[in-house]
Amino acid sequence: MPWESTVAPDIKNLDMSDYAQQVFSRCDALALHSQSYEGMDRRYLTPEHSMANLQVAQWMASAGMETWVDQAGNQWGRYAAPDPDAKSFVMGSHIDTVPNGGIYDGILGIILPISLVQYLYDNDIKLPFHLEIVAFGDEEGTRFGTTLLGSRAITGLWQQQWSGLIDAQGVTIEDALKNFGCDINRVNEASRLKDKILGFLETHIEQGPVLEAEHIPVGTVSGIAGAKRFTLKILGEAGHAGTVPMNMRTDALVAAAEMIQAIEEVASELGVVATVGKITNYPNAVNVIPGEVQFTLDIRSEIDSRRDTVIEILQQVLGQVSEKRKVTLEWKMTHSAKAVACDAKLQHLVSNSINAAGYRQISLPSGAGHDAMALADICPVAMLFVRCEKGISHHPAESVLVEDIEAALKVLVNFVVFYQQQLD
Amino acid sequence: MPWESTVAPDIKNLDMSDYAQQVFSRCDALALHSQSYEGMDRRYLTPEHSMANLQVAQWMASAGMETWVDQAGNQWGRYAAPDPDAKSFVMGSHIDTVPNGGIYDGILGIILPISLVQYLYDNDIKLPFHLEIVAFGDEEGTRFGTTLLGSRAITGLWQQQWSGLIDAQGVTIEDALKNFGCDINRVNEASRLKDKILGFLETHIEQGPVLEAEHIPVGTVSGIAGAKRFTLKILGEAGHAGTVPMNMRTDALVAAAEMIQAIEEVASELGVVATVGKITNYPNAVNVIPGEVQFTLDIRSEIDSRRDTVIEILQQVLGQVSEKRKVTLEWKMTHSAKAVACDAKLQHLVSNSINAAGYRQISLPSGAGHDAMALADICPVAMLFVRCEKGISHHPAESVLVEDIEAALKVLVNFVVFYQQQLD
Repeated sequence: MPWESTVAPDIKNLDMSDYAQQVFSRCDALALHSQSYEGMDRRYLTPEHSMANLQVAQWMASAGMETWVDQAGNQWGRYAAPDPDAKSFVMGSHIDTVPNGGIYDGILGIILPISLVQYLYDNDIKLPFHLEIVAFGDEEGTRFGTTLLGSRAITGLWQQQWSGLIDAQGVTIEDALKNFGCDINRVNEASRLKDKILGFLETHIEQGPVLEAEHIPVGTVSGIAGAKRFTLKILGEAGHAGTVPMNMRTDALVAAAEMIQAIEEVASELGVVATVGKITNYPNAVNVIPGEVQFTLDIRSEIDSRRDTVIEILQQVLGQVSEKRKVTLEWKMTHSAKAVACDAKLQHLVSNSINAAGYRQISLPSGAGHDAMALADICPVAMLFVRCEKGISHHPAESVLVEDIEAALKVLVNFVVFYQQQLD
Repeated sequence: MPWESTVAPDIKNLDMSDYAQQVFSRCDALALHSQSYEGMDRRYLTPEHSMANLQVAQWMASAGMETWVDQAGNQWGRYAAPDPDAKSFVMGSHIDTVPNGGIYDGILGIILPISLVQYLYDNDIKLPFHLEIVAFGDEEGTRFGTTLLGSRAITGLWQQQWSGLIDAQGVTIEDALKNFGCDINRVNEASRLKDKILGFLETHIEQGPVLEAEHIPVGTVSGIAGAKRFTLKILGEAGHAGTVPMNMRTDALVAAAEMIQAIEEVASELGVVATVGKITNYPNAVNVIPGEVQFTLDIRSEIDSRRDTVIEILQQVLGQVSEKRKVTLEWKMTHSAKAVACDAKLQHLVSNSINAAGYRQISLPSGAGHDAMALADICPVAMLFVRCEKGISHHPAESVLVEDIEAALKVLVNFVVFYQQQLD
């Protein structure tokens, strides 16, 4: 049956509630494959990962998809176009979780497009491109300490040095891959670089509170923020809490306090997010004036230049604070990742799909990292965020409304329609 | 020989340099009795305490004093007046140290008056009162976790419940006293309450930077600050450092930062010292917005009412910060000690003694606690502070100039002259 006659005309009244319920139930079902009973814990290349892949493959097969696991342990499914030489558009996200995690982070972006395909399959809708779904084996990096192993393999950027990765139990990644049925010497076969993939759309829970505050179920992601992290070290002078008058102190903690406030102020004014998450105070005793403080600064923006401008301003402002307070201040950069912009055309299609589904559309940056960051190396990428309760993620309290799943499903249906149209 | 003819006339030209050198050398010598080779460590009722008492007693005896150890382990010496029924004036300080401490804290206030007596003895000067010197066994409270054990015993305020005190090695205070040759059941015999002691003068290193900044060797203490301590607990909301926009955060650490600054400001304006010495941040991870912060507040003034006014103001100001930032704030008081005023008449005599010795006189409060606080329960007390390098104390870097020791010795000589005169 040709597409137009079945879906496109009346998407707003399309009833996707059964499919939404399917997604909702399947997220619960997949949660059974956890290394822990308390909160989700499913790490890369574990038996639980294998079982989850198998379950996902079964659902993919029920939706008329061919399935396979690549040499990096990623689970794939393909809803093939009639033309075997058609190119592929990929949807998906990660199947691994953090310890004590939730059941939607990553997972929703796998289960949801499977139900999209199920809908297409049930209605015998064929597409002019292969619609593929991937369940990346590792995004969180919890087992081997390096993130995005699954998606990097797909982009051909698996690093030689990763052969040396070892988990907390002393298991090498080589053995872990072998036990999983993969071969580290063939991991390059997981690369999809040569396939010239049309694009990648990742559906993901927001992991933040913006959509909830805006009272809308879904949003378009404008880009994935680049992050820089620093450790700042303040040297003041320790002293007796009773005997050093206020005007003779060089209190490192009061200096840090002034800096932390300045960071909040500058970041708020200039539209980036900046967080002092960790602080260490010496000697940290009730009756001693702090002589040394170290704190971390995590600063993110979807626009690298804006982030770097804020860093420059902060270097000035905090420098003035340290001069005024006669403390010394050292900055040390501990992490730097560039921002990844979402593809303008795909973003536009996602936005239109949201509007066509009857929802108000907003664009928001992603402050967290995602597989789409890796895929951006080989194809245009976009992301659809789904509202989650209180923005909570990486926690058993992660929660998504079935109505929001239905909204996201409608958006995906629209997206496929609009994507097909612009191909013509 | 009568007093007037030997000392009083020309105190400014009095050469006390040999006695100062004696004090200086004896502080070094007493430092040999340490539980540790790195920094001083001499705790209550240890073999090192016993050896130090013995050494001090020897020096006392050389200065013509009778000596004894009381039932609380305090070492006493008496330079007796010709009239055996004369009352006693007491000088002294504590002979115990903190771990990794210095060689002057407490000690100087014992060794210095011994050399004063040595001077009197060498010049055959008799006084109309017994001049006693005491080396309190415990001021720091390092061994049994309770401070001022030695001086409290002398004031008759040894607490029944202290019988239950046990050190880190499981030794009871009863056994420790027994091993020291004392008897816990006779500890009340250490009380000097019934003797109607004339007064107590404690010489002590400043442990702060004021005298150094003022370029003067000694100063009069106006009072010993009362301290209140609190733990403040701020509850905000933890969140992902990347996904929660600045204006949607309830960052407990930024709230704490604003409070810490406000504390500094209010304390400086109202003339008390306030210190946030300890801070604990949760979950304290580089990529998580802090959800909870606890910090301590130590606030001191020699005037209790001023300190309490500041606390009231801070409760208002910090309450406003927590309201504005939508965090909850809890105060918990963990310590409260009243200020002890130095006796006005004795202070006046100390000040005059400083002026008469040719030094500019300033009064300063003591922010740290001292044995004089305990003695104030049974007699008028005063304190003479001696400049110490950079205000450093409780540390091996504790340092005092021999010139400043000489200055202090001259002040003590004058004090004895003036004290005697006002008795007439």
